[in-house]
Amino acid sequence: MRFAARMSGVQPSAIRELLRLGDDPTITSFGGGYPDPATFPVTPLAAAYEEVLATSGRTALQYTATVGLPRLREQVAARLSADGSPTGADDILILQGAQQGLDFVAKLLIDPGDLIITANPTFLGALIAFNPYQPTYLGIDGDEHGLDTEALEAVLLGGTHPRFVYVVPDFANPTGTTMSLPRRQHLLALAQEFDFLVLEDTPYRALRFEGRDVPTLRSLDTAGRVIHLGSFSKILAPGLRLGWAAASPELLEPLGLLKLAADTQTATLSMSVTAHLLQEFDLEAHIETIRHGYGRKRDLMVKTMRDAFPTSVQVSEPEGGLFTWVTFPRGFDAADFMARVALPQAKVAYVPGATFFPVHQEANHARFSYSGVADEQMVDAVTRLGELLRAELGG
Amino acid sequence: MRFAARMSGVQPSAIRELLRLGDDPTITSFGGGYPDPATFPVTPLAAAYEEVLATSGRTALQYTATVGLPRLREQVAARLSADGSPTGADDILILQGAQQGLDFVAKLLIDPGDLIITANPTFLGALIAFNPYQPTYLGIDGDEHGLDTEALEAVLLGGTHPRFVYVVPDFANPTGTTMSLPRRQHLLALAQEFDFLVLEDTPYRALRFEGRDVPTLRSLDTAGRVIHLGSFSKILAPGLRLGWAAASPELLEPLGLLKLAADTQTATLSMSVTAHLLQEFDLEAHIETIRHGYGRKRDLMVKTMRDAFPTSVQVSEPEGGLFTWVTFPRGFDAADFMARVALPQAKVAYVPGATFFPVHQEANHARFSYSGVADEQMVDAVTRLGELLRAELGG
Repeated sequence: MRFAARMSGVQPSAIRELLRLGDDPTITSFGGGYPDPATFPVTPLAAAYEEVLATSGRTALQYTATVGLPRLREQVAARLSADGSPTGADDILILQGAQQGLDFVAKLLIDPGDLIITANPTFLGALIAFNPYQPTYLGIDGDEHGLDTEALEAVLLGGTHPRFVYVVPDFANPTGTTMSLPRRQHLLALAQEFDFLVLEDTPYRALRFEGRDVPTLRSLDTAGRVIHLGSFSKILAPGLRLGWAAASPELLEPLGLLKLAADTQTATLSMSVTAHLLQEFDLEAHIETIRHGYGRKRDLMVKTMRDAFPTSVQVSEPEGGLFTWVTFPRGFDAADFMARVALPQAKVAYVPGATFFPVHQEANHARFSYSGVADEQMVDAVTRLGELLRAELGG
Repeated sequence: MRFAARMSGVQPSAIRELLRLGDDPTITSFGGGYPDPATFPVTPLAAAYEEVLATSGRTALQYTATVGLPRLREQVAARLSADGSPTGADDILILQGAQQGLDFVAKLLIDPGDLIITANPTFLGALIAFNPYQPTYLGIDGDEHGLDTEALEAVLLGGTHPRFVYVVPDFANPTGTTMSLPRRQHLLALAQEFDFLVLEDTPYRALRFEGRDVPTLRSLDTAGRVIHLGSFSKILAPGLRLGWAAASPELLEPLGLLKLAADTQTATLSMSVTAHLLQEFDLEAHIETIRHGYGRKRDLMVKTMRDAFPTSVQVSEPEGGLFTWVTFPRGFDAADFMARVALPQAKVAYVPGATFFPVHQEANHARFSYSGVADEQMVDAVTRLGELLRAELGG
């Protein structure tokens, strides 16, 4: 059967097969990027569903505006305003999760062959969303301060012209690193000078458990060059599928047309209930609790890894989010080790890092999530893995 | 700002502006395709939300499989099996409304310039979903038995080659007509002979209030050429945003990859609650009630129109669904009449028919929905409109 040319970039992902291992109860999986379900506000949500269905059920079950429920747009705008970028309800498009924003931005901007620049490595889900639009990619290396904007500038000066640069500035997936303020400012200056847009994806931004917030790219942008994506998945629950885009009107209006084309609107009931919840429930206190929990989990995982793993293995210590990024010595293949040793002998899964690189895949990394495994099980699994790594690598 | 080439086909629709008139309480709008909110099973849904959140809230709020919740896939498959096409859970992809299936099928199959054949006129939302993939269109006229497959065959024999033919075989939007069994069989024979796929969209299929069901294209298809879309929007509630695709594995698998790329998955909670509801609730009895209600509404609207409108105006009498299609004499412009007369003088809105034609727009039609306006208000508004039409057209 002949498919459209774009489908050549839409292939089953090895990582998805791997993540199915998370369903095997004998495997301890650090692979999923799932938030800890113990953090979901189940009882307040149940009360909100009851209240909304009792008082305005018929409206909440009917079609509504494609751009989203006005009250929820206002509430999201208020949160962005409180986070440093004055935003009105009209600047917000409610999405079926931030993932949908990744799809729409590429659909809006990318003709086949157009260039997207990302951090190297970057969020796999973004590459999956962008691929059907047949972009070319360039990955820019980073360090503990995020994407190296000097390296980006050098590339731009060489004549490379991206349609947009995609970044997860806060506690990036997969590396856990946060872009520094000077780099954010530099990125925006480059966007203006070299005429490209910046796609800022912030699913983990509220989950800082250490250090101080760095201003969002959106809050630093004076030229309307930032499309900002956010999500309720990690601060309420992913099963609601609620996210948003914030952008200038000339970008938001065509994104809204793509929303109409793609799925008419996000579920009215999910939006109504979330709007009700945000009014009745102390979301900031809830986020504070989540942060403390993940901070404790990160401490435990990083400490256990540093004790158990050989000294040749580097473990990142993110200030927020869900992930630590582990770098093995050059020549080590994390995927091969997992299939050959970690899974069969330690019953431990993680995500081999190669999959997160848009162009040249580096085999000697792995992403571990500390959000989803109970403390004792985490310590045991990391310790077992450490023994096998010492046997493999020495040290 | 430069957008991708595909955005030239993504434009604000005049009809959307028009439908906003539905929010003006002084206007009686027959424009929306909204189901009657009085039919929504609010109380059973509230009980299902309460039960699911109380017993499995954390699971129901977590991420789940991209293709959809296994139990809901089974239930949808069982309904399709009961409707004449033996279907397994693995043949089902759960979607964010059937609209999302229209997006994905075009994304899967259409390279710029590829041909889509539709009925003439056809569902505007389908054209909106297809447009970003830059198809060309051919509309095939129909009659009271649906798309004229003899005319289609003539076009195919002339060398025209569509990637797929899109049809709403039951109570089509906007015409309300149903494809006869011989035409369905002919369409599938042509699909096999001329090597194209058939996209069968069935949002209104369960809403038959007169006559006998005609087998679905999927149930008649022996060659795996039908992609079947369905929706809970008109039999439960649109605010849940739940639909499905059923197709052969070689089509369903890449559609699932597009689902992953576009929005990861449909909302776990919506799927869990709907699965629970389908187990606890007599959906077929519920649909029977909805059918009777819409049948009564159709009778009232068609009778009132035939009494009030000039004899030169034809009013279709659909056997199901939400719409009647009104055809005015040649030379009459339904959009102009609405703006100039119907809205200011009668405070009545409908959808001018031109917007539903993929290529050559015919101005002398209008779509009226009988689902959303209370009886007395409907009769008054249609009667007022009839007086103005008689003044305009005579008779």
